[in-house]
Amino acid sequence: MTIQEAKTIFRANIAKLKALHHAMGILSFDGATGAPAESAEGRGKTLGYLSGCAYEIETSKELLEAANYLKAHSGELSAQDAREIEVFLRRNEYTASIPREEFVGYVTLLNKADAVWHKAKLDSDFAAFAPLIKDIFATNVRFAKYYKPDQAPYDTQLSRYERGLTMEKTDAFFNALKERIVPLLKKVMAKPQIDDSFIWGKVYPTEIQRKFTDYLLEVITVDRNRCGVGETEHPFTTFFNKKDVRVTTHYHEENPVYSMYSVIHEGGHALYELHSGDELEGTLLSGGVSMSVHESQSRFMENYVGRSRPFIELIFPKMQELFPEQLKGVTAEQMYLAVNKAEPSLIRTEADELTYALHVLVRYEIEKGLFDGSIAVEELPRIWNAKYKEYLGIDVPDDRRGVLQDSHWSGGNVGYFPSYALGSAYGAQMLAKMKETVDVDAAVASGDLRPITGWLEAHIWKYGKLYDPMELLEKAVGAPFDPKYFTDYLEEKFTRIYNL
Amino acid sequence: MTIQEAKTIFRANIAKLKALHHAMGILSFDGATGAPAESAEGRGKTLGYLSGCAYEIETSKELLEAANYLKAHSGELSAQDAREIEVFLRRNEYTASIPREEFVGYVTLLNKADAVWHKAKLDSDFAAFAPLIKDIFATNVRFAKYYKPDQAPYDTQLSRYERGLTMEKTDAFFNALKERIVPLLKKVMAKPQIDDSFIWGKVYPTEIQRKFTDYLLEVITVDRNRCGVGETEHPFTTFFNKKDVRVTTHYHEENPVYSMYSVIHEGGHALYELHSGDELEGTLLSGGVSMSVHESQSRFMENYVGRSRPFIELIFPKMQELFPEQLKGVTAEQMYLAVNKAEPSLIRTEADELTYALHVLVRYEIEKGLFDGSIAVEELPRIWNAKYKEYLGIDVPDDRRGVLQDSHWSGGNVGYFPSYALGSAYGAQMLAKMKETVDVDAAVASGDLRPITGWLEAHIWKYGKLYDPMELLEKAVGAPFDPKYFTDYLEEKFTRIYNL
Repeated sequence: MTIQEAKTIFRANIAKLKALHHAMGILSFDGATGAPAESAEGRGKTLGYLSGCAYEIETSKELLEAANYLKAHSGELSAQDAREIEVFLRRNEYTASIPREEFVGYVTLLNKADAVWHKAKLDSDFAAFAPLIKDIFATNVRFAKYYKPDQAPYDTQLSRYERGLTMEKTDAFFNALKERIVPLLKKVMAKPQIDDSFIWGKVYPTEIQRKFTDYLLEVITVDRNRCGVGETEHPFTTFFNKKDVRVTTHYHEENPVYSMYSVIHEGGHALYELHSGDELEGTLLSGGVSMSVHESQSRFMENYVGRSRPFIELIFPKMQELFPEQLKGVTAEQMYLAVNKAEPSLIRTEADELTYALHVLVRYEIEKGLFDGSIAVEELPRIWNAKYKEYLGIDVPDDRRGVLQDSHWSGGNVGYFPSYALGSAYGAQMLAKMKETVDVDAAVASGDLRPITGWLEAHIWKYGKLYDPMELLEKAVGAPFDPKYFTDYLEEKFTRIYNL
Repeated sequence: MTIQEAKTIFRANIAKLKALHHAMGILSFDGATGAPAESAEGRGKTLGYLSGCAYEIETSKELLEAANYLKAHSGELSAQDAREIEVFLRRNEYTASIPREEFVGYVTLLNKADAVWHKAKLDSDFAAFAPLIKDIFATNVRFAKYYKPDQAPYDTQLSRYERGLTMEKTDAFFNALKERIVPLLKKVMAKPQIDDSFIWGKVYPTEIQRKFTDYLLEVITVDRNRCGVGETEHPFTTFFNKKDVRVTTHYHEENPVYSMYSVIHEGGHALYELHSGDELEGTLLSGGVSMSVHESQSRFMENYVGRSRPFIELIFPKMQELFPEQLKGVTAEQMYLAVNKAEPSLIRTEADELTYALHVLVRYEIEKGLFDGSIAVEELPRIWNAKYKEYLGIDVPDDRRGVLQDSHWSGGNVGYFPSYALGSAYGAQMLAKMKETVDVDAAVASGDLRPITGWLEAHIWKYGKLYDPMELLEKAVGAPFDPKYFTDYLEEKFTRIYNL
């Protein structure tokens, strides 16, 4: 074999894998958007077949030999090519550790789980979803053991989302957050609460909210020729290549703020994918490097940009133009305060910046318990509700607004949740660094966000998966990760807003 | 090999083909609905890869050997199994006659053509689309010659859509129509025209039209748990299995009647697919047998049901409820006359029943000319416009409303158009037969269409592809095909409406 031959084999197989994952991604996206209710079974069969094809290619002797040959000659490869081989071999090690039938079975299980979860959530029927959760977690534990037999399965799982992450590190991270957030929240709760009643008691028609979505995506510079918008039960972003990204939202006619922040959040994910370096396109290195870094970008847009005073001042005239009756007499300042109201609530995706990490903590602790066996699936509603009482001081009225609210477990995103809190903290550290050279508030106020997106593109987006997540973050901010930027940000912001 | 072994091989490969076609179908459906503008290139690559996989499976030695073995032992197979082998071998004969690269190249060409056509239509820019038409027709001629070297390529093409159809038969059919329709239209045009001005000059908001769509599909008994609705430039129906069918429509805010008849038409296609026999599911025999029979079902719902007086009387109260201001003071009778106004017009999909076949005739003659070389692609706009002048007496103002209006050529549906006129005629003969045992008007008036759908299911839908189209029609109506039922229907209806 020559290097050129090995490269040709490698590229051809990666192209096939990309095509299969593109098709599977579109099938899943369609399943969450336009597909009729009874379509799940047929989709499951097709996903099962395609994932089997992907498994065979990814674990084929031909591809593995080519990759190993290239690894042995990595000194003769460009840095990018060498990195791609490394990323492939890591991925292959995981995939090849799982027997084919189980790999395919998991894909069809998730397809079924998605349909069951949708219905169970609507009906607030935990018992209907419980067997699927059990199966999904058991599968993840089993896969983690296949892959790293000598490691705690949840450590393996965390590290799949954020390379190098462990329970020890995650515990330390959440402890650092709790230490600052819990007393801060107490002080906030002792103050008179922000009045956001002006938002409620009105109807914000979906078709007008759709126009608001278009406007928001334009403001945050999402290129709509490369980004579609769908409507789903749970907002998400999916991506097939840098010319084809999709975000989704969920419209609540009683309050346009929910969809507004879903759109800005998912738009942040979209921007990351849309600005992956051109030279990475078609390789395994295109697109976001990890879910924590991805969440750092989405929560950057959602919170550090989207919940800032200049942003609300920028967009409020448009909001009032779209909802003239509903927002009559309201000021931008009132809206700014309303979108920053901090108060324990039931739904993670609708939580304020201050309490958000506590929602994530509940999920992290539950996943840990499900992985080590200290929590049984049957106990989930009780434990969920007890933790919401403990950390957030509120009573969960039903499972729809409790343990069934998120789509992550049904989607197999087990071990994902810490990414949200880590991402928020990464983002805060990026914001601090960015402010050394960019007048962030002035850029937002001007309506031209390019100084901000330009920084993110130059330091994060364009690199795709060229560096491991922590390496990328340290390169971008010039220092090791430190959650204090996030807690400092929260303390400064909420002290100011609540006159603490 | 044993029969059981051959069957197992056959079934496993058909399942793979079904999965690949499902994935390709979803990719194309997504391309026409939610996909962003620049996504075509990536989708083309994926479609190219998947179609190559399908080609390899369909023409594989393994599958072909199993199928030939089963054919040789067809006496030992059930009638259904024997028929499926026959259908597969016919299809294989066509596919295997085309070199792999050309087969795949055509799929990516069509993906590109779809995007180019969309833009060309919006811009009324024929020159942009012309090279694609040229390429698509040239490919179809070439493929037809690969498949049947000794036959006129357009005969081959017609027969692919409607087994046994030839230019000779199609000419005779259109001549029979022209003979009756042209003088009838002349008489109609000499009468005072129906006043449909009450529809115009108002806005019918898309979000209300969406509710009207839901209502109409319910009336015609489409099961929405198995049928999704999308919005596209050109309405169409696509189907993946009998639990997953999609119809699309296009909303024109100035007139709700356009989308109304698109929805009923596509709903007719959907019903056919949704009621294919359960025992056919997963085989090559599930779903509609030919495009003419498909169009007979869609145009049955659209015209014989949807444009009947009892149907308008049935749905008009709902229409008025949804559009109370827009239709204030209008009567069901006025609406009935308006939706049956016969007058030469520019757009096929919006044409009345009487002139519709003339729109199809224009396209048939043009396709024939493109196939035999007597028409060059460059001349298309001129010839299109001249034929509209000749047959319909009207001037085509631009290519958007002329030669660029349909999505068929960009979709590779070359030779499809005659199906619409044939389908209308098949449907009229079914209607006459159905009336021997079903009081069609009374069923429509009652709002319970099941006597009608029950007849269609029992005589057409449930059989899938078990019989060739002409055989199925003759079985259903108990006589050979005769276009006089269609022309009689038109003459009776328009004589009555226009007091001829």
